[in-house]
Amino acid sequence: MGVGKPVAVVGLGLMGQALAGAFVRAGYPTTVWNRTPGKAGRLVAEGAAVADSFEQAVAAASVVVVCVADHDVVRGLLRSVGGGLEGKVLVNLTSATSAQMREISGLRGVGGYLAGAIMGMPQGIGTAESLTLYSGPRSVFEVHEEVLRVLGEAVYLGADHGLSSLYAGAGVSLMWSVLNGFLQGVALLEAAGVRASAFVPFARQNIATTADWLAGYAEQIDEGAYPGVDATIDSHAAAMGYLIRESEANGVNAELPRFVRGLAERAVAEGRGRDGYAAMIELFRRP
Amino acid sequence: MGVGKPVAVVGLGLMGQALAGAFVRAGYPTTVWNRTPGKAGRLVAEGAAVADSFEQAVAAASVVVVCVADHDVVRGLLRSVGGGLEGKVLVNLTSATSAQMREISGLRGVGGYLAGAIMGMPQGIGTAESLTLYSGPRSVFEVHEEVLRVLGEAVYLGADHGLSSLYAGAGVSLMWSVLNGFLQGVALLEAAGVRASAFVPFARQNIATTADWLAGYAEQIDEGAYPGVDATIDSHAAAMGYLIRESEANGVNAELPRFVRGLAERAVAEGRGRDGYAAMIELFRRP
Ligand SMILES: NC(=O)c1ccc[n+]([C@@H]2O[C@H](COP(=O)([O-])OP(=O)(O)OC[C@H]3O[C@@H](n4cnc5c(N)ncnc54)[C@H](OP(=O)(O)O)[C@@H]3O)[C@@H](O)[C@H]2O)c1
Ligand SMILES: NC(=O)c1ccc[n+]([C@@H]2O[C@H](COP(=O)([O-])OP(=O)(O)OC[C@H]3O[C@@H](n4cnc5c(N)ncnc54)[C@H](OP(=O)(O)O)[C@@H]3O)[C@@H](O)[C@H]2O)c1
Repeated sequence: MGVGKPVAVVGLGLMGQALAGAFVRAGYPTTVWNRTPGKAGRLVAEGAAVADSFEQAVAAASVVVVCVADHDVVRGLLRSVGGGLEGKVLVNLTSATSAQMREISGLRGVGGYLAGAIMGMPQGIGTAESLTLYSGPRSVFEVHEEVLRVLGEAVYLGADHGLSSLYAGAGVSLMWSVLNGFLQGVALLEAAGVRASAFVPFARQNIATTADWLAGYAEQIDEGAYPGVDATIDSHAAAMGYLIRESEANGVNAELPRFVRGLAERAVAEGRGRDGYAAMIELFRRP
Repeated sequence: MGVGKPVAVVGLGLMGQALAGAFVRAGYPTTVWNRTPGKAGRLVAEGAAVADSFEQAVAAASVVVVCVADHDVVRGLLRSVGGGLEGKVLVNLTSATSAQMREISGLRGVGGYLAGAIMGMPQGIGTAESLTLYSGPRSVFEVHEEVLRVLGEAVYLGADHGLSSLYAGAGVSLMWSVLNGFLQGVALLEAAGVRASAFVPFARQNIATTADWLAGYAEQIDEGAYPGVDATIDSHAAAMGYLIRESEANGVNAELPRFVRGLAERAVAEGRGRDGYAAMIELFRRP
């Protein structure tokens, strides 16, 4: 019943199950393999074939999607098949660092190869909500874009195989930052009897306003000059002091405000007090 | 030439100058006072009157806007006038903690009183870009709303005089969080030759997506149950490990990722690993 390129999905954990399900339902001939047998029941009922080994799964497909626990597993599997991946495209959706993603392109027998980072949960796979970042040769992405779009939005970042991991890291860094900043605010307001839900509209407005500044700050960073036209790091550091005192006085956790002010104070100590907040990039660049 | 209630602006620092300028240009009879004389030149040219003392400024106005360096200055000034503020409305826009804002309402001679927090820069004052938060008796806010709207958007938060400071603190906590999360991402991507400006659209998309989750998390927090339906703190903590390794491997600062993981690991140690991220509020609530 399948049309389109034959796909293999290797690894049937939470995420692998979702990936394979999306390919099967989109009508792609789909072969699955998992180290521990018995996880393919539902997929087989939907039309997937089960391979007895990784090698067999690779042999059955032209696009091999790998989504296993970690990079060591990927490396072990790739070493075991030797030249078996020649003429195929490997799409590695296993979480890994940029260096690990780059390392794979040098492994013997790996032909066309895209590194990918899934920015979301298994539940979103196959819907427009899902975003996956890809890096590797542009031609490989373009030839296989249609298959990849089965999983959701597919964004191509560039030839460097490390880019998908780097962008993913940058994205989650923002996510945790927003969440922690929100939780600090919730804790503060709860101290005055304000419920978290009542804080949400104001929080979203603040987040959106701050997001509007990023393009301007990015320009300053790219140019290496950070004029403090809006507010200086000195004035930010002073305001951070209020947040610390406010947190302490209300008996809530003050670690995040203290961490934030620690960074700003170091920038001040380095003579950046009269610069704008974008000058803080100098601290973030160094270990 | 003035129409409307007579206003006094006390303190002609960067912010006070902007406030007074907005009132003068909106046609309000405006009296200004500053400790150090000689700062009112441009305002006088635009039509402001200059008082010789704080007391005189108060006497000339029905709405007294105070915007000086800090709370100690406000307290000193208010003590000096004794009952002079009776029958007037004091609008305190000086940055202060919620406890300090509440303290003022108990000072002898203070009548109608609004605590305010300016969420922006002097340049924005008098434009729709500017947002000021107010707390105190609703009737006082409503009677003076028109005057306050001269400065920009005016949002009333509730009767507790501490609310404006608390919301302001919650807002800046989010602002710094977004900025630091962004800078971490910029530093990471620079290591692969990606310019900050190229990261901005992706960063904004990530921020917007995360902001969309806040209402759901707030509901969980208000209800005190944090089902890990999307992702568990365990899985967040694992992903944080990638961000740390990625940051270290690329020679950029890993303090923020380490701080973030430190929090998550404590939540895991407290048995919250299978909960969703909203459960982290339990850590933020405690010193
Ligand atoms: N779940 C998410 O929300 C999510 C989101 C984005 C990215 N990811 C990434 O996707 C990848 C998979 O995640 P998941 O949630 O599917 O994890 P999971 O449910 O824990 O599944 C792990 C998979 O790896 C396999 N595996 C482990 N060790 C193996 C070995 N030595 N040889 C062969 N196979 C091995 C497991 O096979 P067995 O069944 O035999 O143990 C299983 O199929 C991870 O890198 C994860 O970071 C997940
Ligand atoms: N600027 C901003 O972007 C901004 C944004 C939001 C909130 N705020 C808040 O607004 C307030 C004023 O900020 P600003 O930027 O205008 O500060 P600023 O430029 O440093 O001005 C400080 C003002 O306080 C006065 N002052 C200091 N000590 C005094 C004393 N003992 N008695 C009487 N007056 C005294 C100063 O008078 P002299 O001229 O005699 O020194 C001056 O008018 C602060 O609480 C600040 O946190 C500022």
